[in-house]
Amino acid sequence: MGTKNLQNFFDPLSVAIVGASHDQKKLGYIVLENFVRENFHGMLFPVNPDTTPILGKEVYPSVKKIPEKVDLAVVIVPAFAVSKVLKECVEKKISNVIVISSGFSEIGGRGIVLEQRLKKIIEVAKGRTSVVGPNCIGVFNPKTKIDTMFLSRERLRRPREGNIAFISQSGAVGSTVLDWLAQEGIGISKFVSYGNGIDVNETDFLEFFADDKDTHVVAMYLEGMKGEGEEFLQAMRKTTSKKPVVVLKAGKTEKGTKAAASHTGSLAGSARIYSGAFKQTNTIEAGNWEELFDFVKTFSMQPPPKGNKLAIITDGGGFGVLATDEAERQKLELPEPSLILKKKLQSKMPAHVKTHNPMDVTGDANMERYWYAMEAMLGSKEYDGAVVISLMQVPTLEPKIVDAVVEMKKFEKPILVCAVGSDFTQRVERNFENNRIPVFPTPERAVRAFAAMWNYKKYLQK
Amino acid sequence: MGTKNLQNFFDPLSVAIVGASHDQKKLGYIVLENFVRENFHGMLFPVNPDTTPILGKEVYPSVKKIPEKVDLAVVIVPAFAVSKVLKECVEKKISNVIVISSGFSEIGGRGIVLEQRLKKIIEVAKGRTSVVGPNCIGVFNPKTKIDTMFLSRERLRRPREGNIAFISQSGAVGSTVLDWLAQEGIGISKFVSYGNGIDVNETDFLEFFADDKDTHVVAMYLEGMKGEGEEFLQAMRKTTSKKPVVVLKAGKTEKGTKAAASHTGSLAGSARIYSGAFKQTNTIEAGNWEELFDFVKTFSMQPPPKGNKLAIITDGGGFGVLATDEAERQKLELPEPSLILKKKLQSKMPAHVKTHNPMDVTGDANMERYWYAMEAMLGSKEYDGAVVISLMQVPTLEPKIVDAVVEMKKFEKPILVCAVGSDFTQRVERNFENNRIPVFPTPERAVRAFAAMWNYKKYLQK
Repeated sequence: MGTKNLQNFFDPLSVAIVGASHDQKKLGYIVLENFVRENFHGMLFPVNPDTTPILGKEVYPSVKKIPEKVDLAVVIVPAFAVSKVLKECVEKKISNVIVISSGFSEIGGRGIVLEQRLKKIIEVAKGRTSVVGPNCIGVFNPKTKIDTMFLSRERLRRPREGNIAFISQSGAVGSTVLDWLAQEGIGISKFVSYGNGIDVNETDFLEFFADDKDTHVVAMYLEGMKGEGEEFLQAMRKTTSKKPVVVLKAGKTEKGTKAAASHTGSLAGSARIYSGAFKQTNTIEAGNWEELFDFVKTFSMQPPPKGNKLAIITDGGGFGVLATDEAERQKLELPEPSLILKKKLQSKMPAHVKTHNPMDVTGDANMERYWYAMEAMLGSKEYDGAVVISLMQVPTLEPKIVDAVVEMKKFEKPILVCAVGSDFTQRVERNFENNRIPVFPTPERAVRAFAAMWNYKKYLQK
Repeated sequence: MGTKNLQNFFDPLSVAIVGASHDQKKLGYIVLENFVRENFHGMLFPVNPDTTPILGKEVYPSVKKIPEKVDLAVVIVPAFAVSKVLKECVEKKISNVIVISSGFSEIGGRGIVLEQRLKKIIEVAKGRTSVVGPNCIGVFNPKTKIDTMFLSRERLRRPREGNIAFISQSGAVGSTVLDWLAQEGIGISKFVSYGNGIDVNETDFLEFFADDKDTHVVAMYLEGMKGEGEEFLQAMRKTTSKKPVVVLKAGKTEKGTKAAASHTGSLAGSARIYSGAFKQTNTIEAGNWEELFDFVKTFSMQPPPKGNKLAIITDGGGFGVLATDEAERQKLELPEPSLILKKKLQSKMPAHVKTHNPMDVTGDANMERYWYAMEAMLGSKEYDGAVVISLMQVPTLEPKIVDAVVEMKKFEKPILVCAVGSDFTQRVERNFENNRIPVFPTPERAVRAFAAMWNYKKYLQK
């Protein structure tokens, strides 16, 4: 646990690619190419019995023949050959090893025996060598250009640098999230998929990200635990005291638990036990896939609210109603403006605009009307944050609405935007998010994200 | 009710635009331009006291001066002038009038008086003139090119021709949905937003769409009712016996109800009463905004299942687990394949693929492996439909997976796809939907859409 050196998984100075291939279709070629193409700043040592250079790089017949110190070995050789390579890595005193290769406990039978052999080697190494995998896609760090994923950039775009760390048990779920984050222009600090998790697991990474300065929020996709329950709880408690952790737990129903067991051999355990543990440790539980994404995005962009008094500002009354329904369900407060605040609002609004919460600035609102509503409501002590519904289909609302909303950051209260539509709206949306104002396609999702922030903050204030 | 002629709202042979303007910024110009630009096939009569031609069209000083029969008048004049125009429309025996103008009961005070005057004129006309509005964006029909919406095409794209009819009380919600449908490439048969609904309302349109051959599914956004409850229930019952109706009801919580009352003056009523009424009439209730969209899209593309036995086929085990959790929550059955079916599946799969439901064809699956799984499972009597999770990030899965899925339509069972990711995935997704296979970004949403279809069908089978 605490003694493990995880830093080298994400920021090594020298990397050996064991199983680097001359064949462009092989994973061992693709992974080496990631490092070369992205101009990895450290030293690179391809390893292959055939020492013909690959991509202009000198190739070594084994890790033991590498003349320099090696911080990280990435292993992509057939399952039966992994134990020999791992032994050599230990002998070479390589502190960190990622085993990409599959064909271990996940296929049963002989794979279980092979995995046992790896575990024994790790045991003997007594913490001097930490192993991620096997059967994983490994690590991605946009800052240091570490990328052990064997999935092509055409199909799986890489997200840019940001402040979200993402721990995924499943490689497929993990890579899909990365592709989606890239599409949405949202950055990550570090990503890891640890597969069968025979050595380093969710607990170790959670502890590591708790102290990682580049990480402001941690996202986890979890089917079951690889490590010990008590240690995991401790790591969650420690991490959430420093930064929010959002978890999507799969295998919550009886059938889902069974499916998880068949998928990764994890004991998914009772949904209630997990949900209880998440509540106790102030871990935010995402109800589904989209919530994981929404919550993490929000935490990465906005400060949590100091209270649960939400202002809703909208140019579409119907959307205000839907937002109100969701706020009630999420137990947020939607106080009416005080008489003083009402007067202040009315003085700047045309007669047909009524001053309530939701504040319906109506379909002929322009940027100025939004500005006055936000300035008055967020500037008062009556509200802790706002969901701003900005339907761009109406002719009066100009794209500079973004500037008005961005200006409101001065109040240091969270502001979440709801906007939905085609090309025009999407350009405005991108502009909002480039300014760290998260945008949601439905009023309900915006309100739920606000509630997630409040639930996290509320616990810390106790 | 039944005596009202609604056809002319959507398919008139001659249209008067009352308040057609010479000023390109005015709504009366934009609406006329819609008709001219889209080459409306019928006769067009702009009406304005200033009879200088607009867009090359002869202008008439009043509807009464139009020498031809007029099927539909679209009224875009200041609120105080509407009653005079409406009276003239009645005298001219125009059967259908859409009043776009706002400034009526929604602004209170004098607006209420003006609205009462309109009601009186309608009463006197005794059903010879049907009115949509006031305070609405009116009607859009991509087939006949009727488009009374005053929102620019740059900001609000129009969806193509399709089989979804959409009734929206709110103009903002309605136009946002249209823009989104256009973005997603999904077509509609007819759209109407009826605003204050002083004459024709949700009940009338529901009855009309029940018998409309171009409409296969009806979507409604409802805050409260404008018509009588009993008539509305009858119309729902009648319509759902012929085609699915999906409703998003806003104002479900106490605060939401209040917000709705302030927005459209509708009595939103108790959520329980509505939910009960929806269940009784086999109306599918969408829990939120995205569900309305998902359910309607699914009904418009796929046949409902004959039973609730769902097959899940996936190349990502984690997504299979999430889909299983949701299927359990939705009370769908996920039977394991029979021994015979298991053998059939195993004979075509590599050793590391285990035959269960979810059927995890694993991350190295190619198109053929999906084909065998779908052919065997959907071809058997053991399953009523499938959710196919197809994560395109893996290198082995080719875009021709679309052909394999489309071929399975031969079994006449619903097939829903889950795929999520960036450019590459999105191209494949569009190809699926062009072939009427709905695609969802999360496994949970795909499963909920399947459940909505089953809930509709189950009731019909009783």
